[in-house]
Amino acid sequence: MSERIANAELAAKVMSADEAAEFVNHGDKVGMSGFTGAGYPKALPAAIAAKAKTAQGAGGEFKIDVFTGASTADAADGVLAEANAIGFRTPYNSDRTLRGQFNQGEAHYSDIHLSHLGQQVQQGFFGTMDVAIIECTKINEDGSLVPSSAVGNNVEYADAADRIILEVNSWQSLNLEGMHDIYAPEQLWDRTPIEINDVGDRIGETFQRIDLSKVVAVVETDDADRNTSFKEPDDVSKQIAANFLQFLEDEVAAGRLTYDNYIMQSGVGNVPNAVMAGLLDSKFENITAYTEVIQDGMLDLIDAGKMTMASATSFSLSPEYAEKMNEKADFYRQHIILRPQAISNHPEVIRRVGLIASNGLIEADIYGNVNSTNVSGTKVMNGIGGSGDFTRNAYISSFVTPSVAKDGAISCIVPFSSHIDHTEHDAMVFVTEYGYADLRGLSPRQRAEKMISVAHPDYRPLLREYVERANELGGHTPHDLATAFEFHTRLAQTGTMKK
Amino acid sequence: MSERIANAELAAKVMSADEAAEFVNHGDKVGMSGFTGAGYPKALPAAIAAKAKTAQGAGGEFKIDVFTGASTADAADGVLAEANAIGFRTPYNSDRTLRGQFNQGEAHYSDIHLSHLGQQVQQGFFGTMDVAIIECTKINEDGSLVPSSAVGNNVEYADAADRIILEVNSWQSLNLEGMHDIYAPEQLWDRTPIEINDVGDRIGETFQRIDLSKVVAVVETDDADRNTSFKEPDDVSKQIAANFLQFLEDEVAAGRLTYDNYIMQSGVGNVPNAVMAGLLDSKFENITAYTEVIQDGMLDLIDAGKMTMASATSFSLSPEYAEKMNEKADFYRQHIILRPQAISNHPEVIRRVGLIASNGLIEADIYGNVNSTNVSGTKVMNGIGGSGDFTRNAYISSFVTPSVAKDGAISCIVPFSSHIDHTEHDAMVFVTEYGYADLRGLSPRQRAEKMISVAHPDYRPLLREYVERANELGGHTPHDLATAFEFHTRLAQTGTMKK
Repeated sequence: MSERIANAELAAKVMSADEAAEFVNHGDKVGMSGFTGAGYPKALPAAIAAKAKTAQGAGGEFKIDVFTGASTADAADGVLAEANAIGFRTPYNSDRTLRGQFNQGEAHYSDIHLSHLGQQVQQGFFGTMDVAIIECTKINEDGSLVPSSAVGNNVEYADAADRIILEVNSWQSLNLEGMHDIYAPEQLWDRTPIEINDVGDRIGETFQRIDLSKVVAVVETDDADRNTSFKEPDDVSKQIAANFLQFLEDEVAAGRLTYDNYIMQSGVGNVPNAVMAGLLDSKFENITAYTEVIQDGMLDLIDAGKMTMASATSFSLSPEYAEKMNEKADFYRQHIILRPQAISNHPEVIRRVGLIASNGLIEADIYGNVNSTNVSGTKVMNGIGGSGDFTRNAYISSFVTPSVAKDGAISCIVPFSSHIDHTEHDAMVFVTEYGYADLRGLSPRQRAEKMISVAHPDYRPLLREYVERANELGGHTPHDLATAFEFHTRLAQTGTMKK
Repeated sequence: MSERIANAELAAKVMSADEAAEFVNHGDKVGMSGFTGAGYPKALPAAIAAKAKTAQGAGGEFKIDVFTGASTADAADGVLAEANAIGFRTPYNSDRTLRGQFNQGEAHYSDIHLSHLGQQVQQGFFGTMDVAIIECTKINEDGSLVPSSAVGNNVEYADAADRIILEVNSWQSLNLEGMHDIYAPEQLWDRTPIEINDVGDRIGETFQRIDLSKVVAVVETDDADRNTSFKEPDDVSKQIAANFLQFLEDEVAAGRLTYDNYIMQSGVGNVPNAVMAGLLDSKFENITAYTEVIQDGMLDLIDAGKMTMASATSFSLSPEYAEKMNEKADFYRQHIILRPQAISNHPEVIRRVGLIASNGLIEADIYGNVNSTNVSGTKVMNGIGGSGDFTRNAYISSFVTPSVAKDGAISCIVPFSSHIDHTEHDAMVFVTEYGYADLRGLSPRQRAEKMISVAHPDYRPLLREYVERANELGGHTPHDLATAFEFHTRLAQTGTMKK
């Protein structure tokens, strides 16, 4: 029995991925581990894809419904999508092939808040969950699991599924043990408070209990997560980060923040990384994070003693930082807690701790409505992820974005967002390389002025033209509906939103 | 000293409304009690309006910023608006004159979630609060207040304001004492759980403590709330109610609800009243409500023994039911709790108790995005109220609406909502007189089919036409942005959304 499979009953169920895939059938609802390219099953998806191709080659059908934590990798969503084996998918996805299938109407995608999906599965909104496929670091003697680099919806999927397939990945460091805080909230109608008052509070166990009788297969793997490097921040990212830090400084000056109570939530990407680099040299101390994913910049802040505690549900690290994590997990687990996404993203806890949310966007409109998901209102990119969970309940919700995309052909500030994922009621502050627009307490007409002030100078005249035309038509939220999407229709016709 | 002013220090500050209005100055930020036409100050607003007219008549300026619980009445928002004395207003408003000023850009309106405003005031998002004007039923010997028919943001306003003016309204029944549960959550960054696990849990005190040294005036009044009668439900309302009850029955059949755990949240109006009438004859028992306002139908359900407990922040009763409440408050307070709106609408508690939200709308689009606030995207009606608080965190969120408005000239289901207050990520079920559309777990293309099935038959071909055109252009969320608002532009040009 290997060191990583310490339970005899489960050790007896070790088999190949192809053998395990026999437990996955056409039409199954499959809950998979995996969040932002970490902790996803490495072997089963390819084996299921092969089974699908065989079935399809013989003239049969083979499609499954895939539920995950968030995005996975080529080895999971990628191979399944290539095999046309996904009929339905939720929640967040970043796989290009699969995204193409959503946009062609070939696969169904339901874009659900990351904090909501687990409970919706448990509440039976999707019917019966057939299989859970869960990666773990180790199986303990009692059959409980040491989770790997992401927790995601593993608790809910293992609880709800009829059958469980485990992948034990020896690439994951055994030192991850102790980093997780596995807690399952009470179910309806017996719910009680989630007793996290501070980012670092632990309320659960370091392992995941499962019903051993449901485990049909255990598969051994030894594969790295999809760790991708970040680009060095460019000048625009650095300027956005500087403006965001100026906003924090101004909040301190206004008495709404002090240098030692900044609680960070941060989306993933180059701008957030630039913000974290900026924080290294800032006056902010004892920074904590209540967020979804642990990024390189947070490890730097922890190493520098600037960040004392980070709570998340997964890692999203570059290959070098993933290696560092695996080597020094015993150190980092004093400063990092990985929780189920139902908890990392729970509105109750987010509201209570009082964090400053900071997420990217596709576009925002002059009144502060945000499109995070659908390019030109139609083609889905990745999904809303946790941005709704955080934006809706943050102490202060902010969005950070370059003012333009595609070399200036696209303005990220438009007259009317072509899809709306966050409304004017939730979005407070917008930061671009031209400054920040603080919309708190403003009426729509006042908001438009602020938003235009942080738009790219090339687009300010066009936005002002729209506002003047709209104001002539009047209303609390002035719009000229006949031309509200003129930026988008011009882009479609000419390749640029510019006139 | 009157029976209702039992504190000597405050009894010494009794004066006329005109005298009290001297404590309210041009430019002041004024937090007023009042929620859905209950518990608003009856005397001060007219006195302030008179002061404003005098100042304006002398060539001076006089405008105040008005913060309330929600809507008030002619005697509050109405008289101030008529005097052009409101520069800024938040959150919910139903006064026609004031609404007109918002839509003309003459007064600034910021449409904030009802659960958010109190904390935003405390957090300093609006600067310093100058005056709080609070109606109460009685002043206790120790100076604490027995609240009246609404609690609203009274705790936050009295705490944040430099000066407090009290109105003691002897129209309010002394038997209301004991009905309230006044609890102020801990402030950032020391927040702890709000320990309400069941609708009927009490966590606070029956009175409101205030800083007596801040009280500058006490004014005595004897005036009824703005109680308005409901219309008898018409056939359409009855059919919508029947379809909503069918939805509940189907949830029971699916195992997602039982006859004794329906927790109601309900918007105000004829359809909700018809639903409550339908519940009287249904199999549902031990109904509870975790909602904003106590309506006639809830008293009927309590009288019939069908509803065991209702939690809200105010009454919105017809004159006859208001009279009944004042006579039988000692009975009703065993079944009714009035809380601060920060608690009645708190995401944490809403999510925990597991309620079924049911609110009205202006329009929804084929993908399930909801406009609750701005007619044709521009003219604000009343504001988002608590619909966002409940929709975002409900167990199941539903919207109830007639399929058409203005004798069929307006379809309440459109290709693209002209303003979006609730997104596809939050809205689950839509009920019209033609049935219900359950969008849970569906992709946008599937959602469109469901939504069109509950649209008015006159508009289904037009909606199908749009969907076909949009599908040809493709995308996960198919749209033809050039014509996405064609229903609205046609209405503006021809007076009807019909072709």
